[in-house]
Amino acid sequence: MAQKPSIPKGTRDFSTQEMARRNYIFDTIRSVFRLYGYRQIETPAMENLSTLMGKYGDEGDKLLFKILNSGDFLSGVDEELLATRNSLKLTNRISEKGLRYDLTVPFARFVVQYRDEIKLPFKRFQIQPVWRADRPQKGRYREFYQCDADVVGSDSLVNEVELLHLIDDVFKRLGIRVAIKLNNRKILAGIAELIGEPDRLIDITVAIDKIDKIGLEKVNEELAARGLQPAAIEALQPFLAIDGTTGERIARLETLLADVAIGREGVEELRYVVETAETIAPMEACIDVDTSLARGLNYYTGTIIEVKALDVEIGSITGGGRYDNLTGVFGMPGISGVGISFGADRIYDVLNTLGLYPGEIGQTTRVMFVNLGKEESLAALRLAASLRESGISAEVYPEAGKLKKQFAHADALHIPMVAIIGADELAAGTVSLKNLSTGEQKTVTPDGLAAELASAN
Amino acid sequence: MAQKPSIPKGTRDFSTQEMARRNYIFDTIRSVFRLYGYRQIETPAMENLSTLMGKYGDEGDKLLFKILNSGDFLSGVDEELLATRNSLKLTNRISEKGLRYDLTVPFARFVVQYRDEIKLPFKRFQIQPVWRADRPQKGRYREFYQCDADVVGSDSLVNEVELLHLIDDVFKRLGIRVAIKLNNRKILAGIAELIGEPDRLIDITVAIDKIDKIGLEKVNEELAARGLQPAAIEALQPFLAIDGTTGERIARLETLLADVAIGREGVEELRYVVETAETIAPMEACIDVDTSLARGLNYYTGTIIEVKALDVEIGSITGGGRYDNLTGVFGMPGISGVGISFGADRIYDVLNTLGLYPGEIGQTTRVMFVNLGKEESLAALRLAASLRESGISAEVYPEAGKLKKQFAHADALHIPMVAIIGADELAAGTVSLKNLSTGEQKTVTPDGLAAELASAN
Repeated sequence: MAQKPSIPKGTRDFSTQEMARRNYIFDTIRSVFRLYGYRQIETPAMENLSTLMGKYGDEGDKLLFKILNSGDFLSGVDEELLATRNSLKLTNRISEKGLRYDLTVPFARFVVQYRDEIKLPFKRFQIQPVWRADRPQKGRYREFYQCDADVVGSDSLVNEVELLHLIDDVFKRLGIRVAIKLNNRKILAGIAELIGEPDRLIDITVAIDKIDKIGLEKVNEELAARGLQPAAIEALQPFLAIDGTTGERIARLETLLADVAIGREGVEELRYVVETAETIAPMEACIDVDTSLARGLNYYTGTIIEVKALDVEIGSITGGGRYDNLTGVFGMPGISGVGISFGADRIYDVLNTLGLYPGEIGQTTRVMFVNLGKEESLAALRLAASLRESGISAEVYPEAGKLKKQFAHADALHIPMVAIIGADELAAGTVSLKNLSTGEQKTVTPDGLAAELASAN
Repeated sequence: MAQKPSIPKGTRDFSTQEMARRNYIFDTIRSVFRLYGYRQIETPAMENLSTLMGKYGDEGDKLLFKILNSGDFLSGVDEELLATRNSLKLTNRISEKGLRYDLTVPFARFVVQYRDEIKLPFKRFQIQPVWRADRPQKGRYREFYQCDADVVGSDSLVNEVELLHLIDDVFKRLGIRVAIKLNNRKILAGIAELIGEPDRLIDITVAIDKIDKIGLEKVNEELAARGLQPAAIEALQPFLAIDGTTGERIARLETLLADVAIGREGVEELRYVVETAETIAPMEACIDVDTSLARGLNYYTGTIIEVKALDVEIGSITGGGRYDNLTGVFGMPGISGVGISFGADRIYDVLNTLGLYPGEIGQTTRVMFVNLGKEESLAALRLAASLRESGISAEVYPEAGKLKKQFAHADALHIPMVAIIGADELAAGTVSLKNLSTGEQKTVTPDGLAAELASAN
């Protein structure tokens, strides 16, 4: 036999069992999105390169998968350019489309393109694959799903409050214990201003972001290495020492930033979001106010959110924040919003590690009828059809043959119940029903079959 | 403002309303697939070109979207090849991956790749987009979804019987009246043999396939033009004149093909499939035995299935059949099966034309709370959270502001109920609930809200 075919590196096939697990995650996220009034959209896998290029930095441009123009793509390319053998320049002449790199840029493009039809505030969710020509490695794929929910056209912090509950609901349903880390870009800006380094926001946050990993001393060394003055580093220390309860942390930030308008504003926003979220309904997730949280600073302008699993060592499994200017790159300024993105692949890893899938996930078929011949299979087909009428999934083993093989098939497919119609059952007008996990077998009438299947475990 | 961004021609965005409708179709198909024991898989959007090329004919090879290799893709290309400016040859050197063109070839690749893990018979379904660099035109897209179910590793006609009921179930649920056209490749082979033109199967079927459109006389002219002898055309006439009930048609075929083994076998298969399907449970679809049905003859080896909507003039909305050799192209012979593919885009068009969507489809949110200020919104957030606990989708308008604007928003989003908590309601501890379609307004207690929302239309 020829060599087994394979798939491009960094991509994956999903088996029936993996799909059952993935669907469980996507269905959970999707149903919670809907519970909060988010509505689904989809955008094409291919976008014009003019839409994608320049939106993810130079590195991002390189990681875009580009589609070769159809037909005689070289016909319009001049000799000179070809002679230079410059792949980068040639790309622009032979490729006009690329695969979507994330869901944010297509969403921004969508908002601008349909701005006359969209009602603001617009709450949309989108669950689709994205593609990146990254070097494949463990846990990093070239094709993976993003699950994004955003509300745009509203500055209200009510949106943040609801997003925190939405996150809590998703992980409560999945059974994953999480901490929701919260910060606010304005607090970071306030700190930078207070310590006299308003232009060094990124340097400061990149360094303090590492405090959990490398410790306070090394962070201070890095700050110095990045050129911060000793006085500034000294002034920063009280922020790095903040601890206690959420209320204590917020109070401390309030005190420290009392004289910096932008910082005060950030603390007020944080306080409103945290207190309101906690007061309107109980949450299972711990809220963790963390000024070292600095994700997406080139993009987020207010609230910053990151979710960590408590029982598995893994990076962030969800993240998001508030932005001021979703659509400016497409010439439409002033569209602000707040959004969240669930990392389906990492959530999948967490559920696998902790064994948190409900037992019935793999069972799509409730009962398999064995096939013992033409007449017998006819009776089985009839009963299977009537079970499906009652919403019970059923299948008939297609080939008449050895019982042992058929039972093994049901077992391999995690089908919990097997129904047997042989000569005896045909004569008596009954069905023998076997529970594959308990081994229990009983004889039932055709009319009693649906009830029996619905009640059996 | 800059020019509006756009998407590549032949691709589509799906708005929230379109997604609601599409999800209704996909959810229906998916749930019926599961009811019959089909299990979902997914394959990557990108396949190696070695997997895709040569599987769809020369024309198909051209219609594959090819992905440009990452990085300096020209570095390995020699001067000579570049100098020829031969796009086709260059493609092989600068592109290794392509977008999936259908779900059948990736499925075949999947079966071969995981042959040691898959239990036969293997019932899989797959609902994913495919891409074709076709010239875009009305109703033909460069990105569209396919919804395929196949069972491989079983020759039993029980599979065909169940597929007919599966098709019937899908269209019954969608409310589309359909005819299921049935034929069998072996009948066509029998006819070709009987009339002395066994090697002209394709010529014969291509011509008689047009009988509905161009009439008997023109079909006979075309048969002559394709080089069939007058005696052969004469011998073919009884087949073209077959009509009557399904039983009568099968009986007539049986008589006409009595002396041709392959034809007899085809009729026997057809008879078993039709009679068994009709005997095990009532079907709403009409079964239409049609010897002019000739789809997929380069591929199908037994049963051929095509579904037509009865109330809309549109091409086939579903099709499928039995094949002998799914995986031969990948060096693994002997894998037979039968499958069906639902055309989601055409089904969408049929439902739109006939206005068959259930009314509640666009309503993802059951109730919107208006926002009348900080205290009021807090009470609204609390109640929204408690409704969601009961599984009722609810949202809170994020910005405090004019009632009229907020009501208009709910109306535009087809949210059926609006809950109002103003100063009076806050003081009284009540909620005013307004039904936007009837205009009816009533005052309820927070505890009664969930019950009221569940019962209201």
